[in-house]
Amino acid sequence: MKIAVYPGTFDPVTNGHIDIIKRGRKIFDKIIVLVAIHPNKKTLFTIDERINMLKESLKDLNNVEIDHWDGLLIDYIKKKKVNVIIRGMRAISDFEYEFQMALMNRNLYPDIEIIFLFPDEKYTYLSSSIVKELAMFGKDVKHLVPKIVNEKLIEKYRGKNEKS
Amino acid sequence: MKIAVYPGTFDPVTNGHIDIIKRGRKIFDKIIVLVAIHPNKKTLFTIDERINMLKESLKDLNNVEIDHWDGLLIDYIKKKKVNVIIRGMRAISDFEYEFQMALMNRNLYPDIEIIFLFPDEKYTYLSSSIVKELAMFGKDVKHLVPKIVNEKLIEKYRGKNEKS
Amino acid sequence: MKIAVYPGTFDPVTNGHIDIIKRGRKIFDKIIVLVAIHPNKKTLFTIDERINMLKESLKDLNNVEIDHWDGLLIDYIKKKKVNVIIRGMRAISDFEYEFQMALMNRNLYPDIEIIFLFPDEKYTYLSSSIVKELAMFGKDVKHLVPKIVNEKLIEKYRGKNEKS
Amino acid sequence: MKIAVYPGTFDPVTNGHIDIIKRGRKIFDKIIVLVAIHPNKKTLFTIDERINMLKESLKDLNNVEIDHWDGLLIDYIKKKKVNVIIRGMRAISDFEYEFQMALMNRNLYPDIEIIFLFPDEKYTYLSSSIVKELAMFGKDVKHLVPKIVNEKLIEKYRGKNEKS
Amino acid sequence: MKIAVYPGTFDPVTNGHIDIIKRGRKIFDKIIVLVAIHPNKKTLFTIDERINMLKESLKDLNNVEIDHWDGLLIDYIKKKKVNVIIRGMRAISDFEYEFQMALMNRNLYPDIEIIFLFPDEKYTYLSSSIVKELAMFGKDVKHLVPKIVNEKLIEKYRGKNEKS
Amino acid sequence: MKIAVYPGTFDPVTNGHIDIIKRGRKIFDKIIVLVAIHPNKKTLFTIDERINMLKESLKDLNNVEIDHWDGLLIDYIKKKKVNVIIRGMRAISDFEYEFQMALMNRNLYPDIEIIFLFPDEKYTYLSSSIVKELAMFGKDVKHLVPKIVNEKLIEKYRGKNEKS
Repeated sequence: MKIAVYPGTFDPVTNGHIDIIKRGRKIFDKIIVLVAIHPNKKTLFTIDERINMLKESLKDLNNVEIDHWDGLLIDYIKKKKVNVIIRGMRAISDFEYEFQMALMNRNLYPDIEIIFLFPDEKYTYLSSSIVKELAMFGKDVKHLVPKIVNEKLIEKYRGKNEKS
Repeated sequence: MKIAVYPGTFDPVTNGHIDIIKRGRKIFDKIIVLVAIHPNKKTLFTIDERINMLKESLKDLNNVEIDHWDGLLIDYIKKKKVNVIIRGMRAISDFEYEFQMALMNRNLYPDIEIIFLFPDEKYTYLSSSIVKELAMFGKDVKHLVPKIVNEKLIEKYRGKNEKS
Repeated sequence: MKIAVYPGTFDPVTNGHIDIIKRGRKIFDKIIVLVAIHPNKKTLFTIDERINMLKESLKDLNNVEIDHWDGLLIDYIKKKKVNVIIRGMRAISDFEYEFQMALMNRNLYPDIEIIFLFPDEKYTYLSSSIVKELAMFGKDVKHLVPKIVNEKLIEKYRGKNEKS
Repeated sequence: MKIAVYPGTFDPVTNGHIDIIKRGRKIFDKIIVLVAIHPNKKTLFTIDERINMLKESLKDLNNVEIDHWDGLLIDYIKKKKVNVIIRGMRAISDFEYEFQMALMNRNLYPDIEIIFLFPDEKYTYLSSSIVKELAMFGKDVKHLVPKIVNEKLIEKYRGKNEKS
Repeated sequence: MKIAVYPGTFDPVTNGHIDIIKRGRKIFDKIIVLVAIHPNKKTLFTIDERINMLKESLKDLNNVEIDHWDGLLIDYIKKKKVNVIIRGMRAISDFEYEFQMALMNRNLYPDIEIIFLFPDEKYTYLSSSIVKELAMFGKDVKHLVPKIVNEKLIEKYRGKNEKS
Repeated sequence: MKIAVYPGTFDPVTNGHIDIIKRGRKIFDKIIVLVAIHPNKKTLFTIDERINMLKESLKDLNNVEIDHWDGLLIDYIKKKKVNVIIRGMRAISDFEYEFQMALMNRNLYPDIEIIFLFPDEKYTYLSSSIVKELAMFGKDVKHLVPKIVNEKLIEKYRGKNEKS
């Protein structure tokens, strides 16, 4: 069985991520969506919230597993005996960063293979940061993220607006 | 069975191409190496020479098929009922061209998926053009190409040098 | 009256060019679409064919003028007493070339202003070369170019195929 | 009347910004310089200081209006019924960011047009950050910023140095 | 005597930095490795630790001097009457930043010359940040940094892990 | 004695090349300007014309030697026992090409060092091709090239214009 890991922060998951996951499913028998927990990185949503939004968004796709990890990606890969990582690539700045990470990961673990997929061009401008910025200013982002994410964003920022 | 097409001109095949083919084999059950015949593109080697060098270079790899095509890649893909294309990516300029081709091909044939693999960093500088330039000036390129290609390059340019 | 020149080879005009022209019309009172005649550049269509396709494609847009020029763009600009050039930009490679041309043109003629517009993202992959390549292989490109261009491309390549 | 908005943080305004504003005035009847107030972005100068430096620097240019806004740019654009945004572009990294913002803004508000201008090449290296870094180390930046900005920078950092 | 300054934060020094220093020594009679102290930049290692690691790592290379500076690079250059700066360049993003810094520095001090060296391709992915991230997760980085740096990283993160 | 080779086609030499040569002279005791003769590359000026223009343009600079070579750069380097190559870098596209050539040359000859210099920003847009295009259209390029080159360009294109 061909398995690939699709790692990310998913703070929150967007339609661009979903697009990559669906493309990955055409190539692999199973996709593990891996939510990274990075000690020094501040996120809007907690790890549980991020996982729950992914679960809800991906519930209709079989052969997709959701997991989380607070160590180096490479150690997860070894533990799970998977040797393919999927990454989405939208722009030159992605390219450079991804290229350096790919080289470093293969240096640490030569058996690994990193493959890159382009999302649909309508997601070229889309990122979790942009979605959060729009939501913070009260914009509706329902065409950019799964339904559950839109609801959670409204809830999150309504709470914030009320407090301040 | 998961099949992917790896298209190129292969004029001639280099160790960088072989590296990508080997990586592809870890992910797919079969790789079709597709030699493109483009009416307006001048090549050093004929289509038969290019195919023969590939056959000789890849003879020890099972599950690799070599084919050729003189039409649009997308028509080959449809005819063969394959829906994954593999491409190697070495640099930003590759990235831009590949991005445009990927978008155009998906526009013509939405079922297609294009995946990108990075070659080993020691092949970052390697291309068929550089190999030909080195061989033309009498350099030994045996560490850059399969054995058969090195021999054919020596033969090709010895012939040229003798004539001139 | 604010006038801008939109120069290009238009061999042939695509929907991406039309998109830029329409965007330009929102900003300027008049757009001059300038077909460049470059002595050393081979084109598929003659200058008359390129102009006629533009005329037919743009006939419903008022305030758009079509002209041609066989000299340096900067001399046309001076002669017509226009001082704005419009350029479309799709990718990094466009960016670099455009940046160098902009600096050179301003060096020659400091009064000039060059403005850049992004086409709709659905035209990111579109270029005259890609259109010609698709048409050459018998693909229908009617969603990529104006109706008249599609007809002329079919005619051009049918003629070629019959001859060969 | 053709109006364009030129948004930015202007912390502080530099001669590079002034150069873009002057180029914009050649194309549009009026330029609104819009100072963005972003809740999460720390600035050296307060919103009032930034506006006052702009007012003083631009007082000799008619048809330039200065405004500020603490929401999404797109909402300002709609409220003011303006549909052109001007942006300066100096480098590839600018290009990528601007491209994504342009696509997102047009996605939210299809009537909008974003145009890009290149500053004079002598401002290629210039940014508000570099100006602040130079001033912090006591360098004279009077050739890089308007007179009033140079004075305010000296004042700001003299104060800081005395305190520390 | 030809002298060049090689400035950086060196938090910590990696084998990629050592590679650039060795290349520089082939061209210049003396290399000054200048540790930058930037008031607003948080580092993992103190200035003394960074200097000591450099001293230990470079002790076998004659004609290499280690110094530190808390002002603008350009002021150090002037004070020491050196007029060449060496920089390593690994990627496009380095290129852009370096290009802007080079232009700004030459604007401030026209006598200066900035030269760029490419490290060995096996260091393309290497940076102080990546080394720290790997060490933080308990990875051995002894093939990426000098021996002393590996020891100090282990010590630093063991301490941190024990505390938390 | 520190010697560096500055290779190029110099068809013709521009003020941008002269700028790089002058910068190189500040670092090295001697610069060899090496005119490449490439069998498959068409040039406007013959090898003798290119050498003569360089000699005339550089006659006031001591410690500059002009040579030519019809083989691989790396073989010249070995024959002359020089181990430093100088290259000018103006833009991202230069960067990519130079990076690949640097890696290939070091692969063939590990002792070699390739250093990169940025020309003055006023030469960012300047290339031999742009100079030839301007001259072909009758533009005066005397501020872009040495006096002798301007004269030869006028002569060359006047001849061409008269013939046609």
